[in-house]
Order: sequence, then C-alpha cells, then structure tokens
Amino acid sequence: MTDQTPNETFLADWAIHSRFGAVEGTNGVERQAASAADGEQRKWFAELLESHGFTVKRDAIGNQFGLLELVPGAPYVLTGSHMDSQPTAGRFDGAYGVMASAHACFRVADELRENPEKAKFNLAVVNWFNEEGSRFKPSMMGSSVFTDKLALEEALATEDPKGITVREALDEIGERGAAQVFGEEGLDVASYAEIHVQQGRSMEENGVTIGLVNATWAAHKYDFRVKGEQAHSGSALMADRRDALLGAARLVVAARELVDEFEPGALHTACGELTVYPNSPVVVASEVRLLLDLRSPSAEVIRGAHERLMAVIERVQRDDRVEIEIVAEHSWDQNPYQEEGVELAREVAESLGLTHDRVMTVAGHDSTNMKDLVPTVMLFVPSVDGVSHNLNEYTRDEDLVAGVEHLTGVIGRLAEGALVA
Amino acid sequence: MTDQTPNETFLADWAIHSRFGAVEGTNGVERQAASAADGEQRKWFAELLESHGFTVKRDAIGNQFGLLELVPGAPYVLTGSHMDSQPTAGRFDGAYGVMASAHACFRVADELRENPEKAKFNLAVVNWFNEEGSRFKPSMMGSSVFTDKLALEEALATEDPKGITVREALDEIGERGAAQVFGEEGLDVASYAEIHVQQGRSMEENGVTIGLVNATWAAHKYDFRVKGEQAHSGSALMADRRDALLGAARLVVAARELVDEFEPGALHTACGELTVYPNSPVVVASEVRLLLDLRSPSAEVIRGAHERLMAVIERVQRDDRVEIEIVAEHSWDQNPYQEEGVELAREVAESLGLTHDRVMTVAGHDSTNMKDLVPTVMLFVPSVDGVSHNLNEYTRDEDLVAGVEHLTGVIGRLAEGALVA
Repeated sequence: MTDQTPNETFLADWAIHSRFGAVEGTNGVERQAASAADGEQRKWFAELLESHGFTVKRDAIGNQFGLLELVPGAPYVLTGSHMDSQPTAGRFDGAYGVMASAHACFRVADELRENPEKAKFNLAVVNWFNEEGSRFKPSMMGSSVFTDKLALEEALATEDPKGITVREALDEIGERGAAQVFGEEGLDVASYAEIHVQQGRSMEENGVTIGLVNATWAAHKYDFRVKGEQAHSGSALMADRRDALLGAARLVVAARELVDEFEPGALHTACGELTVYPNSPVVVASEVRLLLDLRSPSAEVIRGAHERLMAVIERVQRDDRVEIEIVAEHSWDQNPYQEEGVELAREVAESLGLTHDRVMTVAGHDSTNMKDLVPTVMLFVPSVDGVSHNLNEYTRDEDLVAGVEHLTGVIGRLAEGALVA
Repeated sequence: MTDQTPNETFLADWAIHSRFGAVEGTNGVERQAASAADGEQRKWFAELLESHGFTVKRDAIGNQFGLLELVPGAPYVLTGSHMDSQPTAGRFDGAYGVMASAHACFRVADELRENPEKAKFNLAVVNWFNEEGSRFKPSMMGSSVFTDKLALEEALATEDPKGITVREALDEIGERGAAQVFGEEGLDVASYAEIHVQQGRSMEENGVTIGLVNATWAAHKYDFRVKGEQAHSGSALMADRRDALLGAARLVVAARELVDEFEPGALHTACGELTVYPNSPVVVASEVRLLLDLRSPSAEVIRGAHERLMAVIERVQRDDRVEIEIVAEHSWDQNPYQEEGVELAREVAESLGLTHDRVMTVAGHDSTNMKDLVPTVMLFVPSVDGVSHNLNEYTRDEDLVAGVEHLTGVIGRLAEGALVA
C-alpha cells in the first residue's frame, strides 16, 4: 500500500467502491436509495473513513457523515455528494463526488496534521441520502431535510412504489441515525464543496478539465393528472371515449414539439415517468399521472414554453374530452452560485495548471440546497459524450484524479478559512 | 322464500352475488382472477349450486363447474361465463352470465325432473377462470386451456405483475382442482350456451332485449416494445436523445388518428396498457412496452389500418431514433358463430315474445373458444349507454330477467338434443 501514490490509492478505492450494486455484464450500477447495495456500500465507506481517523455518524434522515476534529469546537468544512443511483445507471455521477471528497479530506487532513497552525475549521465528508429521487420522491431528500427545506417526518413517511417508507427502508439497512450530527444548536458548518461529473458534453468538447459551476438552469416541473373514464377498449364507440392515456400521450408529444419553437439548445423538455390506471389491455385508461419538465438557461424561454404548453392542455381537454389537472408544479429562475466560490475554484485550477471554464448545471445537486446556507463551491469533471443516468456513463481516470487534486486544493483553502468572513 | 317468483329469486341471488369485491361507495366491483374476492364468491357460488342438487368440481386451471346428472352417462349441455372482473369494473359483464346460467339450469332441471323422458343430455354450469386477463395474461385463460388452445403448464406458470403465478394464486384461494372434470376420455360436452351484457349501446338504442350474437369483429392486436436509451432527462441534448416514451406516445396518438381515415364506426383502436422503464422523473426512458389493438367488423379495414400503422412505425423509428419491435401479434378475420345456434336463439325469443336482433360482438368471449368444438349459442342483453369495464356499468332488472328466461328456453332445447346431430 505504502508505495502507491495518492492518486493510485484513490483509483484503487474507487474501483472497489464501484462494485457495490454492480449490474452484471455491464460497467454500471443499480444502487437506489436505502437498497441493500446502498447499505453495503455505506458500511464499506464507514470503514474507509474510520481507517483515516474520521468518526462516522448518521442523522435522522440517513445522511452519512465522516467527521475529523482538528480544531476543537470549531465549525466544519463539509464536502460530499451522494452514492445512491438511478435504476441501471452509471457508476460515476454523485458517487465519484463522495469518493473524491473523502480522498481530498484525507489529503488535507494529512497536511493539517503536519501544520496544525493553518487549520481554522474541522473537516467533514457527507454522503447525502436519496439525491436521485427515483425510489422515494422528492430528489435531494437528505440535503433538503438537512437544510430545513423539507420536514423530517414528511420525508420519513414517504413511500416507495411498493409502499415501503423511508423510515422502514433506512431501518432495514441500519442507517437511520440521531437527530443532529453537528451539535445541538443546529448547523455548525462553515462552508461546503461538491464535485460531480458533468451531465452534458460541453466540457469534453471544449477540452476543459475543471468546470466552475456558476448557476443552475431555470426550470418548470409539473406533476400532471389526466382524468378520463374507464370503458371497454374494444367495444366503446370512439366518440364516446375519454381516454386518459391518449391525453397523456398528446402531452408527451407536445413537450417534444415545443423544443422546435425555440433556438437549438434553448429548451430541454422531458417526461420520464408516466403511470397508467388501470393499465389493462382491454380497458380505456381512466387516469394517467405524468411528470413533465421544461428546462432552459433562460427564464424567459421557460415562460414562453409554459404558455404554449397550457394552450396545448386547453386543446387536449376540449378535443379528447379529458381533464388535465396540475397536481403540483415548481418553477425557478436561473439560480446562481456565489461568485466568490467560483473565483476560489478558478484560482485553485490556475495554481494547479488545470484547464477550467465556467459552466452551468442543468440538473440540481445537493449543493443547490447548501449554497443557500453557507459559502459553497460546485465543481464538475468531464463525462465522455455526456452520457448520464446510463450504464455506460464514463469519465477518464486522468479527469477523476485531476478532480480530486483540484477539490483537495479547494478544501485546503476552505479549511484555512477561505470564503468565511 | 317459497312465495318468491323464479325471477324474484334470481334477482335476490344476483344482489348477493354482486357484493363480492364491491368497491366501497360505488355500484361496481373489483374481483380480478384468483383474488380473495374471487375466492369468496366461488365458495358462495358452490354452495348455491349444491343447494340445487349440483355437484361442484374444479379442473386443473380453476374453471369451476356445477354438474347435474339427469341421464346417467350422457354428455352435458354446458352453460356459463366468468365471474372475474377488470380493476374497478362493473358488477354485470360476465358475472351476470354465470348467474343467469345457474338459474336457467335450476329451472330446466326442475322441468326435466318432472318430465325425465324429455332429457337427452345432462346439465353443467361453468364459471370460467380468468376471462378478463387483467391480472394474468392472456385473457380467456380458463376456456383456452379447457379447449386445448393453451397448454395447462404454460397457463399455471403465468405470473401477475407481482410475480405470483396462476398456480400459486389458485392454491391460495383453494381453487386449483383435478385435471379432468368431464371423464377421462376428455371433453364430454354436447353443446354450449353463454349470455353476457352487450359491451356497446346498439341494442339499447334499437330497443332490442335479446341479442343473437352471430359473429366477432375482426382484429389485429400488437404487443410492442419501443427501445431507446437511458439518459439524464434534464441535461442530455435533445438531439442526442433516443426517448422510448416519446416513441410510444407517438404510437398511442397515431392509433387514435388512424380511426379518422375510415368511415365512422368502421375502426376501433386502443392502447390500454403501457409500461415505462426505468420510469424515473429524471431519466429518459430506455424501454416502453405497450399493447395496441385494431378492431373492425371488416378484415379489409384491419388490413388497411395495419399498413398505415406500419408506415407510422417506420417514420417514428427514423425521426425519433428508437427501435420498435413487434414482440407478438395476433390477427383474425370476422369470426362467425354457427348459424344454427343463432336460429335456435331467434326461435326461443319469438316464442317468448322478446324483441331480438342479430348483433356482432366486438370483444371475444369464452364462447369464442367453445364454438370451435361444439354447437354454441351466444346471447346479449342490453347495457345502459353501453358502459363497460367501468364501475357505473348498468343493466335494468327487466332485461336481466328477460335474459334468464330466454337462456332457460335455449338450455331447455339443448338439453332435449337441439343442435346436436
């Protein structure tokens, strides 16, 4: 072990880490929140943290923390991401961020143990619970509870499609912990840093190693209920039908067609989840639930797309005699990260001689929650062809280790007090 | 009890019968094949049959029979339908047919016991297993196994969406019986009769009480698999996506639009069942399965619609970069019932002074299987507004009892040897 370089050690740990929930015959994983694979990986990760002198704790929503106290009683620099995955997904995504955070902290800890006078804050690694939201909704559940954006009891009562609650699932893997990890007075965190693979291909195309994330795209997300009426799908006259699945299908098609009404790249739309009732081959569906998203760097584009979508809904309701109800909707404008964090990350990249550029993130991350509370740095490394949420997601070793080196630089500065007034 | 008329007795039994699997707050039922409600209803039904002197038996695929031997060793006139329902469905459908068959047999048995010289055949009532096919596919499972169109072992191994097999589900309700009910030499059935509520509104509109079913519509049924590729539904470039749900939605919309290319009423199309993988809000779907039907009285219309549908598939595969595979397909031409059976039913309606007309059935029935083996009579009573596979399905008492009286006349003639050379 001792003749390995730090980067070789990282890659060795990363290789082990990537085997939890491995999907046979592929390079990918399936490690949904609080699954058996998630539980096994957490145990291994806890041992890794402890072997480096960290104390492992879990909070009441199953966020897993590794704490290292270097300055007794001081606040913590927190860094991490999430190890849970989508179904049949890639092994990088947030999992890379958690492992990069752990190894960055190991390196910074070694340096601060040798130069204790430089340490202003303590170090903590986090593996946020259920960032993906595939099994339990909403996504970013662990960091939302941590930052008081979601009530703990509401989160614990959330059921997966089989009716298992978050509480039960966390207890099943032994990962539901104490209410507070960072002191009884609440959040004792000075600053936050996160690294993630880019979910897009702009950095790879532009030859950029470190992405300095400066904002999240604007978005409008809808939870639609389309209501029709059950009928015999063979014998009912076509004119008598009120087919909820037909109405839903028209929304799915309309969402795609909206894209062509704007400049190329200006609007992304999707429906990833759609559930039919009663979903029987000889019954016209009476109800379809579907989740539909509009995303854009421009809030103005979102507003235009929203208006067009509402017009489509009016038409579908009239022509297909279905009711379309918005059960829930959330929208947000372009959401910036603190400019000071972007600048800190730029300086570190410069000092390490790593190529870098400012990039926006289309997707939300746990840092989206943290940045509203503490100074935050969000970083990307490239992903080959931008493949994401797919078994074939891939980031090159050289980019993985560059990201760890960069994050080490950022954590080191944060531990010395950067960004905190 | 003894001061009830036979029709009052039927309606009283029918009221009890309709309570099994009742959906609270509605007039409908949910009694899917081999569910707890199906099991409870079968036990009650067995007691009813036994109280009228019938011997109750089950075959290996859970078809429930009530046998009454009047002529030792003679073949049986078989009559019945199915008591299982779609999810949140009406209480009539096939359930009415089983109860009408039982009461028709009770009446014919009383008459033949008084006039034993008139009996040529014995009487048997049947409650076919899993006609609906909502929980276990395919539909008409019990009658298909009975008529050797489906292998017993294949049927028993069929799983519901939760992975429970037909074998396990039948054992759970104690309704998996012996291999053969009608003698070791195989099917000892002379003729078959079935009554069902019409799944359509033509009889009600035309003031017809008894439908003389003379043929089944032509149809083409498809089991499609649409294959795309998983991607992040927010960040993946729209041009990079291969969205299986988009491809599937285009098929659902195209199926509806096909209808407008033919004369009104000439073509019915539907997609009632559609399942998305991985069905996560932030993942572009990699696979969608959907069942799509074309139905028409005219095989020529079906062929034309099939050609147009295949052209749509070519276009969707090219434009949306998905693959559309036909996993299975079945088609049939207009499928006639024996003219002799239609004529027998007409004569009985005339003799009872009941309005009647020849009608086609859009949907298949268990009689579709039986008519290929033995002389068969298929009958309809009207359904208000043609509502079917819906909690609000309704047929008036006067039509229910008229149907029982008519079926009694048909069973009486069959028991005396009609239709059998």
